[in-house]
Amino acid sequence: MRNTSPQIHETSFHVRYAETDQMGLVHHTAYFVWFEEGRSDYMRARGASYRDFERDGFFLPVVDCGARFVAPARYDRRVTVRTWVSELKSRSLTFEYEVIDAETGTVLATGFTRHLCTDREGRPRRIPEAWRAKLEVAP
Amino acid sequence: MRNTSPQIHETSFHVRYAETDQMGLVHHTAYFVWFEEGRSDYMRARGASYRDFERDGFFLPVVDCGARFVAPARYDRRVTVRTWVSELKSRSLTFEYEVIDAETGTVLATGFTRHLCTDREGRPRRIPEAWRAKLEVAP
Amino acid sequence: MRNTSPQIHETSFHVRYAETDQMGLVHHTAYFVWFEEGRSDYMRARGASYRDFERDGFFLPVVDCGARFVAPARYDRRVTVRTWVSELKSRSLTFEYEVIDAETGTVLATGFTRHLCTDREGRPRRIPEAWRAKLEVAP
Amino acid sequence: MRNTSPQIHETSFHVRYAETDQMGLVHHTAYFVWFEEGRSDYMRARGASYRDFERDGFFLPVVDCGARFVAPARYDRRVTVRTWVSELKSRSLTFEYEVIDAETGTVLATGFTRHLCTDREGRPRRIPEAWRAKLEVAP
Repeated sequence: MRNTSPQIHETSFHVRYAETDQMGLVHHTAYFVWFEEGRSDYMRARGASYRDFERDGFFLPVVDCGARFVAPARYDRRVTVRTWVSELKSRSLTFEYEVIDAETGTVLATGFTRHLCTDREGRPRRIPEAWRAKLEVAP
Repeated sequence: MRNTSPQIHETSFHVRYAETDQMGLVHHTAYFVWFEEGRSDYMRARGASYRDFERDGFFLPVVDCGARFVAPARYDRRVTVRTWVSELKSRSLTFEYEVIDAETGTVLATGFTRHLCTDREGRPRRIPEAWRAKLEVAP
Repeated sequence: MRNTSPQIHETSFHVRYAETDQMGLVHHTAYFVWFEEGRSDYMRARGASYRDFERDGFFLPVVDCGARFVAPARYDRRVTVRTWVSELKSRSLTFEYEVIDAETGTVLATGFTRHLCTDREGRPRRIPEAWRAKLEVAP
Repeated sequence: MRNTSPQIHETSFHVRYAETDQMGLVHHTAYFVWFEEGRSDYMRARGASYRDFERDGFFLPVVDCGARFVAPARYDRRVTVRTWVSELKSRSLTFEYEVIDAETGTVLATGFTRHLCTDREGRPRRIPEAWRAKLEVAP
């Protein structure tokens, strides 16, 4: 049964035509864009837009990422990205994702992105407390 | 005053991080992806998904397009694409678009895409009547 | 006969798989990325990398653009972008482009991008003389 | 010392402006596009264009992928993708990649993509012998 704990955020949208390739399916890079939109929406939902994070002089570049593609996604389908924090350290954090077909619930892909917290010059920084307080590791 | 005739369809979403470039603004190609999502949603709203159009063996490749960028769009802002049909001929049609900031109403960009109706082999075809009936030129 | 004046710069590369869509052809947004690579290479060839232009505090955002798609481009084909400056004003300039199949010479698309010269805050600026000297309007 | 065995194919190009994001660096999805261009060029160099593979009715969708980002890539730099086959099974294969700065040799990223061989309907197929013969696992 699908984990629906409050630490898991869901965001839904339609697959865009530009996200397909000549195989007739969604190109694998699109999932990483969806993951990114998933964590943007996760943070917005917690009143902590990543836009403000950068405005404060902090950045969360991706240092490691991966994805497994379980079933193909297609143009015009509505998909849901389920996003949660799986690890939270002083200077880094990891998001995990599950992309499902919004109508059938079928899992289409899973993945993760690990981020380092840096300043504008790319130097590692502690994640500020105000931000850490808004993130929550999913059980 | 903004034209709010029923022939104009509106669809809204957040600007994605991947759509920005190192200028700190949205890259100009993203607007064409938004236009495409605008017309996808226009057709969905009229019960005529472009997905089914292709399944029926018809295609609407872009043969001509253009855009003017009036004010910059930025990551995380909510934008609205206003989409309408400005010309409908037997074998071609033109969509026009206006992208506005969903919160302030400021116009960010305007544009158009002209499409030829073709079969799978790229040969020009008349737009099928069943589809034509669902499209409506905005006054 | 094709204009081969020295003011026209040519740059060639293979069509990438990610640039295709489910129609089996190159997505129209890819041409604008190619135009951008065409003008990047135009400037590199004249010893005036746009990278340095931004480092000097100047920017050339696209304010207007357009393209016509004459024949489809396909994955793995080698294409050539022909790039030239068609208009050079004190605060703006226009590049024009022609994308041809590198093997057959067939024209695939034509287009233009008009750019405003701005500073980091987006305010209009005169194009610096050192840069203007490296650009040349094609006859 | 860098492994320069003949089973490792190198392909170089400039970083495109559209590949950057507002952090001022290359967006992480661009590396997967570069990996894809790396394996396209690997196959072209062995006289086995992936274009022909699809024309023959076979496909190599990505079923699993990952990347580590070691140092940032920036607009206009010339990068080299080093591509090799690390595993070759009857119905699947894995490519590995290393992206280096073409001028300094600095490693920017490493990654892999695992592919399943399928027919047009997505059913698993044995990789045809004629194709297998052109692929070679790097020692």
